Amino acid sequence: MKLEQLASAVDAVIERGSPEIEITSTAGLDLAGPGDISFLANPKYTPQVAATRAGAVILSEDAVVDRDDIAILRAKDPYVAYTLAMRLFFPVPALKPFVHPTAVIDDTAAVAGDVEIHAGVVVGANCSIASGVRLLPNVTLYNDVIIGEGTVIHSGVAVRENCEIGRNCIIHNNSTIGCDGFGYAREADKSWLKIPQTGRVVIEDDVEIGANTAIDKASVGETRIKRGAKIDNLVQIGHSCTVDEDALICSQTGLAGSSVIGKRVILTGQVGIAGHLKIGDDAVLTAKSGISHDVEPGKMMSGIPAFDNRDWLRSTAAFRKLGDMAGRLRKLEKKVFSD
Amino acid sequence: MKLEQLASAVDAVIERGSPEIEITSTAGLDLAGPGDISFLANPKYTPQVAATRAGAVILSEDAVVDRDDIAILRAKDPYVAYTLAMRLFFPVPALKPFVHPTAVIDDTAAVAGDVEIHAGVVVGANCSIASGVRLLPNVTLYNDVIIGEGTVIHSGVAVRENCEIGRNCIIHNNSTIGCDGFGYAREADKSWLKIPQTGRVVIEDDVEIGANTAIDKASVGETRIKRGAKIDNLVQIGHSCTVDEDALICSQTGLAGSSVIGKRVILTGQVGIAGHLKIGDDAVLTAKSGISHDVEPGKMMSGIPAFDNRDWLRSTAAFRKLGDMAGRLRKLEKKVFSD
Amino acid sequence: MKLEQLASAVDAVIERGSPEIEITSTAGLDLAGPGDISFLANPKYTPQVAATRAGAVILSEDAVVDRDDIAILRAKDPYVAYTLAMRLFFPVPALKPFVHPTAVIDDTAAVAGDVEIHAGVVVGANCSIASGVRLLPNVTLYNDVIIGEGTVIHSGVAVRENCEIGRNCIIHNNSTIGCDGFGYAREADKSWLKIPQTGRVVIEDDVEIGANTAIDKASVGETRIKRGAKIDNLVQIGHSCTVDEDALICSQTGLAGSSVIGKRVILTGQVGIAGHLKIGDDAVLTAKSGISHDVEPGKMMSGIPAFDNRDWLRSTAAFRKLGDMAGRLRKLEKKVFSD
Repeated sequence: MKLEQLASAVDAVIERGSPEIEITSTAGLDLAGPGDISFLANPKYTPQVAATRAGAVILSEDAVVDRDDIAILRAKDPYVAYTLAMRLFFPVPALKPFVHPTAVIDDTAAVAGDVEIHAGVVVGANCSIASGVRLLPNVTLYNDVIIGEGTVIHSGVAVRENCEIGRNCIIHNNSTIGCDGFGYAREADKSWLKIPQTGRVVIEDDVEIGANTAIDKASVGETRIKRGAKIDNLVQIGHSCTVDEDALICSQTGLAGSSVIGKRVILTGQVGIAGHLKIGDDAVLTAKSGISHDVEPGKMMSGIPAFDNRDWLRSTAAFRKLGDMAGRLRKLEKKVFSD
Repeated sequence: MKLEQLASAVDAVIERGSPEIEITSTAGLDLAGPGDISFLANPKYTPQVAATRAGAVILSEDAVVDRDDIAILRAKDPYVAYTLAMRLFFPVPALKPFVHPTAVIDDTAAVAGDVEIHAGVVVGANCSIASGVRLLPNVTLYNDVIIGEGTVIHSGVAVRENCEIGRNCIIHNNSTIGCDGFGYAREADKSWLKIPQTGRVVIEDDVEIGANTAIDKASVGETRIKRGAKIDNLVQIGHSCTVDEDALICSQTGLAGSSVIGKRVILTGQVGIAGHLKIGDDAVLTAKSGISHDVEPGKMMSGIPAFDNRDWLRSTAAFRKLGDMAGRLRKLEKKVFSD
Repeated sequence: MKLEQLASAVDAVIERGSPEIEITSTAGLDLAGPGDISFLANPKYTPQVAATRAGAVILSEDAVVDRDDIAILRAKDPYVAYTLAMRLFFPVPALKPFVHPTAVIDDTAAVAGDVEIHAGVVVGANCSIASGVRLLPNVTLYNDVIIGEGTVIHSGVAVRENCEIGRNCIIHNNSTIGCDGFGYAREADKSWLKIPQTGRVVIEDDVEIGANTAIDKASVGETRIKRGAKIDNLVQIGHSCTVDEDALICSQTGLAGSSVIGKRVILTGQVGIAGHLKIGDDAVLTAKSGISHDVEPGKMMSGIPAFDNRDWLRSTAAFRKLGDMAGRLRKLEKKVFSD
């Protein structure tokens, strides 16, 4: 692809270098060769720009570099521009419509013509599979499942009865969408009486869900993952939760039932959210934090139980010396109270 | 269903309203309409009773309400009574016996006549599948597996060799029952020598296991999940553990090997239990706690490592100010020791 | 097996007892009978040697025992010797080569003659399956996957495109090898733009991976699990990580992207490792610790964020009394500043 085409496609402008250069791939500054385009987003890597063998580099609008032997592109956000370039050079393989003869599709299911349904897939009664869907091997759709256009479901995934998945979603291997919520009433003899889980899971458009993640159906109504949310591997989403648009939930995080995760919230790894909480828009919870109260929009929280991140940083710094502090306190007491 | 039938079925008595009213479903106080029965268990929601459009409400024996336009039922435990009502209105769909032609069942397996065996199921040699069992698509039973009456195993579950599952259990999707315990001896060159895991997993009656959970077989003997225990999604049960009757283990909790979880113990989310510990009956471990010692019956524990929950609440309250405390301690030292 | 053969096979010497004794199995000191060999590794169990009914016991070179009615073997490491004995008495069942007719194997795949390919297995284009491989039911290999000699892949596992697994590995049920890394660039409107994950996972020889574990492919290049590493159930390995030789990663631990875990490192349960870190050889991270900085070789670290284990033990001991400390500090201040 000519540099000029590429620049236009990734919303960058050529500052230096011929628009006619052929760019054939993308690579990091350290590994790139003459046919590659690379980028600088983090100023920490600026020295690599001086040394790179890349054919072209995407820089932010104000980055200063001293190279006149390579092409320079400027973009508002070089990381986004580079990602767009990667997406051009590493496109998703084109769909090749087929239904494998070992797939078992209920007669009542409505399946579009241009889909990939691989070996061992099972599609239940009254399912609806839209155009451009790919169901990789050994996927199981229970009855009354709806899958929107262009969605890819990887091998081993289970989608339980009545669940709905939007357009252009990706669900990675062995995840479970719509299993029963963990709900019991305690009987007089202290045994647990299962509460029927009558709801479903709705996943809106452009959602990506990692591998081996479990999303419970609601006890009543819906568990809903909204447009553009991204969920990593091994995540637990309890029954009746809502994950709002563009939220990002990292690996091994767990949400108890009925919590509401706001727009653009970032839950980093191994976070735990208690039930019936509201995490405000744009809040960030740092790794391993445990949340037991509502969180205001925009806050960054840490700790178990979590509190303001700056206070937590001070507290954890002091905690390293807590053994010393205890000794110093005893010494002070001795001095003050024996005087 | 007539109100009088329903009241009798859920062990409640009609205090007000006609026994002839038709109730057709269940719903929460806020969403219920005239055909629905609802309930009040948490006094916090009492104001909703004044506003509800429900046809009937189940109350505790001492709850005070001021409505004479709706039917009132009294029950010892309104939550249990309501759950019983839900179970009446949302029954498990009746079993329709069939064995899908794509299921692969070893000739030596003993399979009852009235079972559901869905597409892609694999049943190994010498397995025994009792009456009323449902094996959803793509379940794999290794050799010598026993499944008791009425048990439901959801798609993608693996049950490894020699494991036994009791009656009326539910195992949700993509869980693994009976994989090898994580046991190695360290050789002189510091590499790891695998210890054969020769035992099995036994799951007793009325156990429910969530999705994407892993239960290791014992190295020798049994890992045992006893009658009525409930285990959530993404839980790890190490080799040779025992989980006693009616214990409740929430999502993402992990048990290292050989631990014994007592009767009715509640392990909330993301708890970790070290190996070879005994958690006494009725103990409760709060979310994210990490247990490194035996726990006495009935105790509530928190923290990493865990200690008494009330002490932990005091300690965590103080922890938020630990940065301040460190500064105040320095100030005191300066004052006291420079005087 | 005669005692003399067994002793030689497990690198032990007979100190007392007839070399002609028949040993038929292994068992712990408490359960062993006359045909069993047992062992003593932990001095804590020395009293059990006095009482055991075992036919033979493996002891360390310096253990003192007072039994002349049973055979005594001496070994440098009795636990390793006993493990070797278990491996003799409980061998992995011999492979019985077959390809089940319901397996779907792409015409372009190269499959050795002596393999087990069970029902419902799917093998993609250009895969290479070496001699002695076992693919249990419903395993899915995407295109261009390489599986080395003698490797066992249990039911429900997914191995994604281009991944490579070495010789004599074991991958337990429902794990996912090579799903997409969790990588997005944030667009100006705060939505997430997926970064193509173009790399792969390479698993070297003698690696064991537990059930329901997820290992992400690299965004570029490789995620690599090196020779002899052991990974437990429900573990998350982020994109572009390296796990070095003989590392041991316990259940529910998570590695964010691009971290490097050194040789023989032990990550115990529920540990979290932030991205782009280096954990030095032979380091040990205790349960539930959260690592936010590089760790030097040989260190033992604990806490969130983690610091030196001995300091952490002192700090956590003091933490139990932190509520008291806060009160004592207030009292001191009152005394000192009001005087």
